[in-house]
Amino acid sequence: MRPRLFTPGPTQIPERVIAEMSQPLQHHRSPEFKQIFAEVSENLKQFFRTAGEVLTLTTSGSGAMESAVVNLLSKGDKVISIEGGKFGERWGEICRAYGLQVVDIQVPWGDSIPAEEVRTTVRQHSDATAVFMTHSETSTGVAFDVKGISEVVHAESDALLIVDGITSIGVLPFEKDQWHIDVAVSGSQKGVMIPPGLAFIALNDRAWDRAQNSDLPKYYLSLLKARKALAQQSTPFTPATTLLIGLRLSLEMILADGLPSFWEKYARLAHATREGAKAVGLELFASTPSNALTAIKVPDELDGHKFVQTLREKYRVTVAGGQSQLKGKIFRVAHMGYYDHLDMVSFASAMEMALQDLGWRFELGKGVAAVQIAYATAGK
Amino acid sequence: MRPRLFTPGPTQIPERVIAEMSQPLQHHRSPEFKQIFAEVSENLKQFFRTAGEVLTLTTSGSGAMESAVVNLLSKGDKVISIEGGKFGERWGEICRAYGLQVVDIQVPWGDSIPAEEVRTTVRQHSDATAVFMTHSETSTGVAFDVKGISEVVHAESDALLIVDGITSIGVLPFEKDQWHIDVAVSGSQKGVMIPPGLAFIALNDRAWDRAQNSDLPKYYLSLLKARKALAQQSTPFTPATTLLIGLRLSLEMILADGLPSFWEKYARLAHATREGAKAVGLELFASTPSNALTAIKVPDELDGHKFVQTLREKYRVTVAGGQSQLKGKIFRVAHMGYYDHLDMVSFASAMEMALQDLGWRFELGKGVAAVQIAYATAGK
Repeated sequence: MRPRLFTPGPTQIPERVIAEMSQPLQHHRSPEFKQIFAEVSENLKQFFRTAGEVLTLTTSGSGAMESAVVNLLSKGDKVISIEGGKFGERWGEICRAYGLQVVDIQVPWGDSIPAEEVRTTVRQHSDATAVFMTHSETSTGVAFDVKGISEVVHAESDALLIVDGITSIGVLPFEKDQWHIDVAVSGSQKGVMIPPGLAFIALNDRAWDRAQNSDLPKYYLSLLKARKALAQQSTPFTPATTLLIGLRLSLEMILADGLPSFWEKYARLAHATREGAKAVGLELFASTPSNALTAIKVPDELDGHKFVQTLREKYRVTVAGGQSQLKGKIFRVAHMGYYDHLDMVSFASAMEMALQDLGWRFELGKGVAAVQIAYATAGK
Repeated sequence: MRPRLFTPGPTQIPERVIAEMSQPLQHHRSPEFKQIFAEVSENLKQFFRTAGEVLTLTTSGSGAMESAVVNLLSKGDKVISIEGGKFGERWGEICRAYGLQVVDIQVPWGDSIPAEEVRTTVRQHSDATAVFMTHSETSTGVAFDVKGISEVVHAESDALLIVDGITSIGVLPFEKDQWHIDVAVSGSQKGVMIPPGLAFIALNDRAWDRAQNSDLPKYYLSLLKARKALAQQSTPFTPATTLLIGLRLSLEMILADGLPSFWEKYARLAHATREGAKAVGLELFASTPSNALTAIKVPDELDGHKFVQTLREKYRVTVAGGQSQLKGKIFRVAHMGYYDHLDMVSFASAMEMALQDLGWRFELGKGVAAVQIAYATAGK
């Protein structure tokens, strides 16, 4: 078998993007490169569905998350953090690293939270200066209701709504401006289909006002520096130039088809995969699943590590296992990225064969058939 | 003409490294990738000439500089910063962003400082917890005496010596352990010949002891997190995987030839280039030049911006102009990277032609001849 990558970041990326990044290096301050950076920065606005600037950092997504904290908050601030997985918890961890007072809204892993259930906490802590949340929680495969929570937060307080959109932007319907999301963060190895190494952050005017007065220390992650450089079509520090070259092409490809066509495609791939898993007797983990990835429970009778290892070693299909408290209990397969329906058929086939290797009892072919039926039914 | 990049980062990189980075993406937690990361991390030790761990961050070199500050110092600490250019000043800027008390040793741009001249300040501020310096100051093309300054610092105080080796490691003779350099930082688009997007930092045991007690806030740049992950052949956050794939090959290529052969090569290329510049009547800017790059004064009669622009637009040779107070006054040409003697001949030829275009009077061919004579004289 040839290797197939189905991890929820890095995802598979288009061959054309790989080829594009192989051109001779350019200097990041040359007029040609500034032109490329300006084009990328403009197209990122469309990707984020915002009229405001989108800043590019040379970090992983977590670096951009930290940049939100250190640029928008000040010493002693109280914040609310909605945490239903490893990445939700990261917001709280970063805030605590900077000595902020964190009010956690704990959501059981695998669940999301109805927007209304956030209202009481936001009202009770109306002195909180920010509410942090995750749109698509990659550790559990759960999608959270950003639009609904945004309405509640803005109705009850002046807190900024700061959203981790790392596996949602470009993947799930996401409307930064229309949904009044004050700050949104994303990363490069996800919906935008390039390798890891870049992260993005977009602020609205309210958030920029806060950034002017923030007193937490920062240098490399300073967004005021990044904004000033962007006005000169540049970055304050040497950026990962080859990744930006790839990003120019991938954004062009994505925007040519239009974001809604990607949202729909990922919904179809996710739906088909879920049907495939259920058809072989597996259970889904997420109560309100994200279309970025599907988290599937490993049956108690099977060894979750062995299953993921068999997929990887025998069929060369790499999926992600569970993280933290979910180690060995779930596996996660990506839909976001350069995938189509036949990729999900390949995945379902490998999943079936690995399940059979481990002694799981089901009718071989049922999973693949369910993926095919889902495609036929969707009419595409 | 085809494009030729002579900027002191990004530098030209081997075609084989570009090709290597074009393979299908791998997941950063897979056993195969962990193996690659472990190999890279081992080879980085040889590159830094240290027995201790070298940590890899997904940031530019400035991110690694900030990681040194936030992991090794504590609130209210006093530090000494030796500043003779834009990158030397960066140490002071970062320290001030974190509220540290900074004693500057100002060195005129273009000069270095004899180690003995640092002694009085270090003795006077023996309560300083760190001394920051730059080995190869990229903004001025000056090499500083790291070995000598290290002796003075350690003789006079318990301060950690923290060295920006961004354009020196792999380029100039550099012996982290032998010279008792407590902390050294480097970046990917320099001596290690891959694109920008990764940075490296190495600490000795004394520095790790300090890191245990540092109370400055950090998260993404936490070196304790990075060290813990490295013990598992991994990184705390998703790294720039494609750059690490390139790095594996470039380090293998460099170490196969041996670092000293690179040090010698860059010395020859730098010497030849300086001779070429002098032969056409130009003056060198640096009193103690680095072999990573040569900074050449633009004659008062010529327009420095126009000169760099002519090189780039007419001959497609990209060099760097001056930064900050040196804008328009110097230009800088790289030797570190994937260059050989004939590349320096090409550069000298383009330089001559651009000088002629701008009306500079000299005998055409003298610069190229001087580069050739330097090569012949060196016997290689």
